[in-house]
Amino acid sequence: MLIEPHGGKLVYQVAEPEKAAGLPRLEIKPTLGPDGAPIRNPYREVVSIAMGFFSPVDGFMTRNEVESVLRERRLLSGWLFPFPLVFDVDEEDLRRAGIKEKDAVALTLKGKPLALMQVEEIYKLGDRKELADAVFGTPEKNGEVVKRRFDEKHPGWLIYRSLKPVALAGKVWLLGQPKFREPYSRFWMPPAASRKYIEGKGWKIVVAHQTRNVPHIGHEMLMKRAMFVAGGERPGDAVLVNAIIGAKRPGDYVDEAILEGHEALNKAGYFHPDRHVVTMTLWDMRYGNPLESLLHGIIRQNMGATHHMFGRDHAATGDYYDPYATQYLWTRGLPSYGLNEPPHLTDKGLKIRPVNMGEFAYCPKCGEYTYLGMSYGGYKEVALCGHTPERISGSFLRGLIIEGLRPPKVVMRPEVYDIIVKWWRVYGYPFVTDKYLKIKEEQLEIEI
Amino acid sequence: MLIEPHGGKLVYQVAEPEKAAGLPRLEIKPTLGPDGAPIRNPYREVVSIAMGFFSPVDGFMTRNEVESVLRERRLLSGWLFPFPLVFDVDEEDLRRAGIKEKDAVALTLKGKPLALMQVEEIYKLGDRKELADAVFGTPEKNGEVVKRRFDEKHPGWLIYRSLKPVALAGKVWLLGQPKFREPYSRFWMPPAASRKYIEGKGWKIVVAHQTRNVPHIGHEMLMKRAMFVAGGERPGDAVLVNAIIGAKRPGDYVDEAILEGHEALNKAGYFHPDRHVVTMTLWDMRYGNPLESLLHGIIRQNMGATHHMFGRDHAATGDYYDPYATQYLWTRGLPSYGLNEPPHLTDKGLKIRPVNMGEFAYCPKCGEYTYLGMSYGGYKEVALCGHTPERISGSFLRGLIIEGLRPPKVVMRPEVYDIIVKWWRVYGYPFVTDKYLKIKEEQLEIEI
Repeated sequence: MLIEPHGGKLVYQVAEPEKAAGLPRLEIKPTLGPDGAPIRNPYREVVSIAMGFFSPVDGFMTRNEVESVLRERRLLSGWLFPFPLVFDVDEEDLRRAGIKEKDAVALTLKGKPLALMQVEEIYKLGDRKELADAVFGTPEKNGEVVKRRFDEKHPGWLIYRSLKPVALAGKVWLLGQPKFREPYSRFWMPPAASRKYIEGKGWKIVVAHQTRNVPHIGHEMLMKRAMFVAGGERPGDAVLVNAIIGAKRPGDYVDEAILEGHEALNKAGYFHPDRHVVTMTLWDMRYGNPLESLLHGIIRQNMGATHHMFGRDHAATGDYYDPYATQYLWTRGLPSYGLNEPPHLTDKGLKIRPVNMGEFAYCPKCGEYTYLGMSYGGYKEVALCGHTPERISGSFLRGLIIEGLRPPKVVMRPEVYDIIVKWWRVYGYPFVTDKYLKIKEEQLEIEI
Repeated sequence: MLIEPHGGKLVYQVAEPEKAAGLPRLEIKPTLGPDGAPIRNPYREVVSIAMGFFSPVDGFMTRNEVESVLRERRLLSGWLFPFPLVFDVDEEDLRRAGIKEKDAVALTLKGKPLALMQVEEIYKLGDRKELADAVFGTPEKNGEVVKRRFDEKHPGWLIYRSLKPVALAGKVWLLGQPKFREPYSRFWMPPAASRKYIEGKGWKIVVAHQTRNVPHIGHEMLMKRAMFVAGGERPGDAVLVNAIIGAKRPGDYVDEAILEGHEALNKAGYFHPDRHVVTMTLWDMRYGNPLESLLHGIIRQNMGATHHMFGRDHAATGDYYDPYATQYLWTRGLPSYGLNEPPHLTDKGLKIRPVNMGEFAYCPKCGEYTYLGMSYGGYKEVALCGHTPERISGSFLRGLIIEGLRPPKVVMRPEVYDIIVKWWRVYGYPFVTDKYLKIKEEQLEIEI
């Protein structure tokens, strides 16, 4: 028996391409930051909604739904959901397209029809700065985990703060199956497909691993250990790696390297190929730490995972949140957000179960990766070994890579490094550059 | 809150030495095998009973109690217990001491009073071969896990087969605290003391590890991983290593090396010193695989452990049992022994919880210890990595040691090997010899 989708029903909305003929057309435009650079592209939300990643959400939210989500992190139907999903447009574009409530609209990407929207409501978004604060919380209102006021340096806050002034709400259908370029295409396994895959493999316990990085060995150890925690006496059947594909910033790993880097762990046998699968989800990370962990739980439950590994600083950037905000959420809830219990113990909550984990470090004296534990609230933990292990620092690793140095084997698998080098050759630099960002928005990922 | 002792009450029976004055005296004599060598010394059971390791058992068993244990592996009080505990004597010795039912007797060791026994019953033991078969089971009666008829090559079967013809039943008290020589004394932590120790450390989840070996790295990995399995999101607080000190055979590791070898893991920091403790229990192993695992569960629950790690071939020797007999017991019970449910899910069963684990092997390609899993019954498992890891063979390791070769670091910690060498120098050979056996029965372990 596969785990239930969130809300009990898997969304899967695909329509015949002919349905778009003769409809008013509206181009899906990226959200731009203050410097004019794209920071989010709503087509990713269109695809993810229609393919059921966010089930039971089946369209962009109405004003009432947005308010319900902000007030109690629940949809109007009562199911938990952390973020408002808003399809925002400029008034000028709307007027030009001549769209009004109850219309069906063809949403286009790069000029070609991608999806249908049945417009249920058109409403003005109020002060977007207030909206962004309401989404993420403030130190005054959410002091249990918000340590610093969110601002324009936070990519997720900036997305909400930069929304265009009008929102279209309504159900969306994709016009046929989305097509991806290589290497994305082989990692595209939306919920209906990943559930079928899990069923075919006979996996019962599947631990999801969130990624937006090329894996170093600390990540590998977390995944392997999480299989024991989830599986108990019998380690979990498999790890479902799910990479978030979305807006990038200069200095990030390129998406192709992230996906193929995780795949390399499988191809090179660091994971048994029958116990590991690498997939992707389109979403512009909001870096919402505990709230993002809730969304990740929903996405992976919809994909068929039974457990979700959450580490320290889950989906975080900067020091806005307590590093264990996600652990607080999944162990006792976050009442100031309206989350009075852990999401998997809440009525109309999630079914996926958390595996909260601390950090691994390489201990040269043990010659192995040792658990450093995590300490938060009244909860203090001691390392497993009595030495002083070397933390695996992502920044140190990036420094090595930029210098053209192959990281030590105890830090990164050589096969993973080779993938970085492969894409370095393609893009002329090991990390995301302005040039890559331009290519990405214009031609990567998806073809219509 | 510490875990309850088995049966709800911790036995602790220590009397003033003066109580022995003027009582009839009976020397505790070893059980001898067919070649005249000692194969068991009942003083170990006297000490262990009185110090509460076998709570709620507080003395040697009456005929009815023995029959109850053999019939349904329960004491007359209903609490699970796997083996008959019989104090056996020769008729001649009994006559000479002039002991009859209801007498108090001073039990002496090496001529000095060690314990008091309040004799409740004196009875003849029937056919000891039949008794031994009834203790361990037969392929006909217990075919679910007994694969081969037990015989004199099985040390535990031989113990019951070699019992003297008469049994004394009754409660036992130690005459003061038993005293141990170094290095035994610092590992002596009977249940009342180990419970106090665990409480003082504030440990909540304590995983017991059974040992009769100097630890190789496979054992270390099993212990470390079992902490994750027992602890779930938060690895267990500590490992309680408990070495069984009893009859040895030529070729075994010497007890001092076993204890100090485990201690070395802690001293050298492979375990954090605050999360690991090494202790010992006096008991002549019956090598009863699933039944022995039940006794081990009782011993360690009484000592305060909350979980017990059981590996493949737990407490086994030869190929009498299915290698996963212990896993069968702890996952579904062994009805042919009268154990209809797992011991921790049974009324008047144990409170300690099992952590059933397969094997770890060193994978040179992963550069780490990887789980090979276990497969039994309808239950098939795949290794965690996709390579061909090197199994850590105890026999290969002993071969290296006998050749005077330091085992590779990936197989045994150098500090542990140094302990083997230390005792090798003391006894002239790295393993138990006939000379050691003689020293052991005559002067090792305990002083009165």
